[in-house]
Amino acid sequence: MSSQSQSQSRWATRRAEKHRRLARVSSIADGMILPTDRIVDVLQSLIAPGDRVVVEGNNQKQADFLSRSLAKVDPSVVHDLHLIIPSVSRAEHLDLFERGIAKKLDFAYAGAQSLRISQFLQDGILEIGAIHTYIELYARLYVDLTPNVVLIAGFKADRDGNLYTGPSTEDTPALVEAAAFRDGIVIAQVNEIVDDPKDLPRVDIPGSWIDFVVQSDKPFFIEPLFTRDPRLVTPIQVLMAMMAIRGIYERHQVQSLNHGIGFNTAAIELILPTYGEKLGLKGKICRHWTLNPHPTLIPAIETGWVESVHCFGGELGMEAYVSARPDVFFTGRDGSMRSNRAMCQLAGQYAVDMFIGSTLQMDGAGNSSTVTHGRLTGFGGAPNMGHDPHGRRHATPAWLDLLQTDSPLERGRKLVVQMVETFQAGGQPSIVESIDAVEVGRESGMPLAPVMIYGDDVTHVLTEEGIAYLYKARSLEHRKEMIAAVAGVTPVGLASSADKLAALRRDGFVALPEDLGIHRSEATRSLLAAKSVADLVDWSDGLYDPPARFRSW
Amino acid sequence: MSSQSQSQSRWATRRAEKHRRLARVSSIADGMILPTDRIVDVLQSLIAPGDRVVVEGNNQKQADFLSRSLAKVDPSVVHDLHLIIPSVSRAEHLDLFERGIAKKLDFAYAGAQSLRISQFLQDGILEIGAIHTYIELYARLYVDLTPNVVLIAGFKADRDGNLYTGPSTEDTPALVEAAAFRDGIVIAQVNEIVDDPKDLPRVDIPGSWIDFVVQSDKPFFIEPLFTRDPRLVTPIQVLMAMMAIRGIYERHQVQSLNHGIGFNTAAIELILPTYGEKLGLKGKICRHWTLNPHPTLIPAIETGWVESVHCFGGELGMEAYVSARPDVFFTGRDGSMRSNRAMCQLAGQYAVDMFIGSTLQMDGAGNSSTVTHGRLTGFGGAPNMGHDPHGRRHATPAWLDLLQTDSPLERGRKLVVQMVETFQAGGQPSIVESIDAVEVGRESGMPLAPVMIYGDDVTHVLTEEGIAYLYKARSLEHRKEMIAAVAGVTPVGLASSADKLAALRRDGFVALPEDLGIHRSEATRSLLAAKSVADLVDWSDGLYDPPARFRSW
Repeated sequence: MSSQSQSQSRWATRRAEKHRRLARVSSIADGMILPTDRIVDVLQSLIAPGDRVVVEGNNQKQADFLSRSLAKVDPSVVHDLHLIIPSVSRAEHLDLFERGIAKKLDFAYAGAQSLRISQFLQDGILEIGAIHTYIELYARLYVDLTPNVVLIAGFKADRDGNLYTGPSTEDTPALVEAAAFRDGIVIAQVNEIVDDPKDLPRVDIPGSWIDFVVQSDKPFFIEPLFTRDPRLVTPIQVLMAMMAIRGIYERHQVQSLNHGIGFNTAAIELILPTYGEKLGLKGKICRHWTLNPHPTLIPAIETGWVESVHCFGGELGMEAYVSARPDVFFTGRDGSMRSNRAMCQLAGQYAVDMFIGSTLQMDGAGNSSTVTHGRLTGFGGAPNMGHDPHGRRHATPAWLDLLQTDSPLERGRKLVVQMVETFQAGGQPSIVESIDAVEVGRESGMPLAPVMIYGDDVTHVLTEEGIAYLYKARSLEHRKEMIAAVAGVTPVGLASSADKLAALRRDGFVALPEDLGIHRSEATRSLLAAKSVADLVDWSDGLYDPPARFRSW
Repeated sequence: MSSQSQSQSRWATRRAEKHRRLARVSSIADGMILPTDRIVDVLQSLIAPGDRVVVEGNNQKQADFLSRSLAKVDPSVVHDLHLIIPSVSRAEHLDLFERGIAKKLDFAYAGAQSLRISQFLQDGILEIGAIHTYIELYARLYVDLTPNVVLIAGFKADRDGNLYTGPSTEDTPALVEAAAFRDGIVIAQVNEIVDDPKDLPRVDIPGSWIDFVVQSDKPFFIEPLFTRDPRLVTPIQVLMAMMAIRGIYERHQVQSLNHGIGFNTAAIELILPTYGEKLGLKGKICRHWTLNPHPTLIPAIETGWVESVHCFGGELGMEAYVSARPDVFFTGRDGSMRSNRAMCQLAGQYAVDMFIGSTLQMDGAGNSSTVTHGRLTGFGGAPNMGHDPHGRRHATPAWLDLLQTDSPLERGRKLVVQMVETFQAGGQPSIVESIDAVEVGRESGMPLAPVMIYGDDVTHVLTEEGIAYLYKARSLEHRKEMIAAVAGVTPVGLASSADKLAALRRDGFVALPEDLGIHRSEATRSLLAAKSVADLVDWSDGLYDPPARFRSW
């Protein structure tokens, strides 16, 4: 061995280790194809104790055959894994810790499993690296969390590993690239393996990034998370939607935006073709969108409000509709949608005028969080989109409209709008002295409170009472006054007074519906372009195929 | 035609238009392969007046055969194009405007062409959409700047369009995806077309994203932009590097970082194996890096300081060295580097503790810009990395170390360090009352001054006088006092006094070299682990192959 090749092998330990592991399964694998019924053995051979392992648990798409199989390995062989899971949403994600296979967890979001994460943390069964937003977690895969093994899911693959991820590409490219280019091992579960590469609708990820493909025992699990039944939209939400359109979208000329997934923003989508049309705003506001294919957006699309939608992921039932509207949605040459959470989060951060979402709890300074006691839900994507990106340099009319001085050294601002009804359904106030997240953070030993969106990033608070134009606040005290003025009869709201409200309205810091030319009596469900899921199907020309649970008409 | 398919064709106008154009060149193309000598005809057939056209002008790699060819089309046939070019660096990029082929420009950076852009703008030959950072520009491709045509460059392609971009993948994936999935047309120039797909080293972009491949008349142009000759590092830069290591890296436990491309940060790289070693800091600081493969990083890599480097792009001459160090760099299965500017900018924004760079001009409040009169250089990537990302939620020791209160609602901060010698080589002060960018912005009719990094994002200013710990500032006035205290005999510095300096040092707001245990006499070039490019080649075991212009030893 020459001194140069000796020196090189010293610098290729990851590659050597990868080849060593691949060799262990060469007799089991048929080229790149792993036998479904040997997957537990294979994982045991390919994964070593202490490995950093990415498991594709996305917001929607789950590499669940692989995670279920990983939970079956022998903990005396594979243990102390450091799992990296964008969205911890499967029971087996936590079983891995209970069985001693995994020890440490880095994640961005946990839905149904948030309670168990919290318990395991208390019981010392699990240790947390950090809780991230989605995009931070991807970013760290290229810095200090480079994975040894990545387990992902796709619809189809050919025998060379070329992968069709289907409409729900989501996080997959960002997860795979980090391992494929640092001598990690990438295993893809797919619903179907095709013999002829021409039978792949398209290639979303090249085969040379993938090490192994395995056909899963059943199709990967996927959940419809972005479907809101219009029947559940309340008149108060219609009122708030009207205020949003007049007092924010129209006023600041919002052209590009991200909507949250709550009923508040669904209401906005549903009154664009009625109330928005009446105001003559079509083509003037909200032309470009970054969000999943919300069924409630169908009427606005059909009436020509929407020029483009780029998606984080897909939505069950929307596949045929999206395919039939390629002028609006991003689709491949095969006709099916292409989503990409990393690029869409980037677009939602840097390329849109506004983020608008609902929150459950906000303090008097505008800090909000969906975290509640006993649940470590994580951050997901909202903090990334719901902040003012100081790295932005290009200007748009909405961004410039928030300037407060003539100084050439002042920056424009992204609109970050929080919609919140002053009381929750159960009668608890939503606007409170201190958000639960502060105490949860303390209890869980987190270095800081898990705040979803910080008050200093919020530009507008919209309640059923009115809109507080926080970006105009001259001080923290001033910001608090504005929030109190629209906080109704919550404890925070009771600190305000009729005189203060009158002054804030006069000076343009707060607007009530009447200041915006909105009659509360107009705010009825009759403004909704679709009043039920069946109406959405009609609007879609029968292309939208709602999942069973929404077929209650 | 059924009503559903009628309705569908109404929603597939982009696709229909694409197919109409593709049909126009079907007799010229051999499958996906375009004949080199017919490229001007082909571009004339595929591009229509008013199109949004992305031209891959990257920081380094240039789709120059395609841009030169585009400049030769008949302006009576193809005109009024809206060009989107990340880095405007080729003469023909501007010729396109002079010839009337293009009218509007959106870009992120302009090097050698910045003077001409400025002139063309004044003369009304060119209109500017906006000036962006790289990552904002990519993001807008998915929102309101979706391209009709994308012209890119790779090393090799097969006849199915599968693309090997080589070590300099850079912007290509982000540019291609935006067109490939919204019925745009993607044309790739390559240095070589291989008949057998197996002759591709690897696939960086799948063929199903590409419409046409053309072999260029000569290999694409690529420039070494990140090579700094150690011979030009001055003793003052060594002193500042020592201060950075002791007063910032060590103090805040900086684990992951991005270095700018100036000589100041090259000096830091070069004294890690000497000064850093002496301080016993190896393995304790700067283990993970996001930057191009700087040759001046070689000694630190060889002595074991560097665990990982993820790269925006490549660097000419570093190919073999990078290939031989896969434990450190991101490389493909073929052994060559994979870079990715979008992912690296993401990592540089969200996943690292610190950005540290040099600036040419800074005002007393810490605002800085490299923009000077008569040149519209744009922003490039610095503002994205050189700000505190308010969307970040995960904590690291360095990020938490900048907390100023015990409030659970305070956020940690990214370190944004500006290194600036108080006077430029020509004797002009670098720290000034007002940066030129303010006037340039006004003259060019920009809505705001083109500030590269804003003072409120800067956490540390490091001059040859000392370090100002700006993150501790209690007010804008306080921040200005700290900067003045390290601004030497510049007009800004003369506003300070010995008393003020003493007070700031006593309270830990400012540190001089002696406060950090640094003797100015130690700051000599003898601390540089490599004193010349020849030394870097030696360190690399002969693997680094510097471009001719750096072979002056």
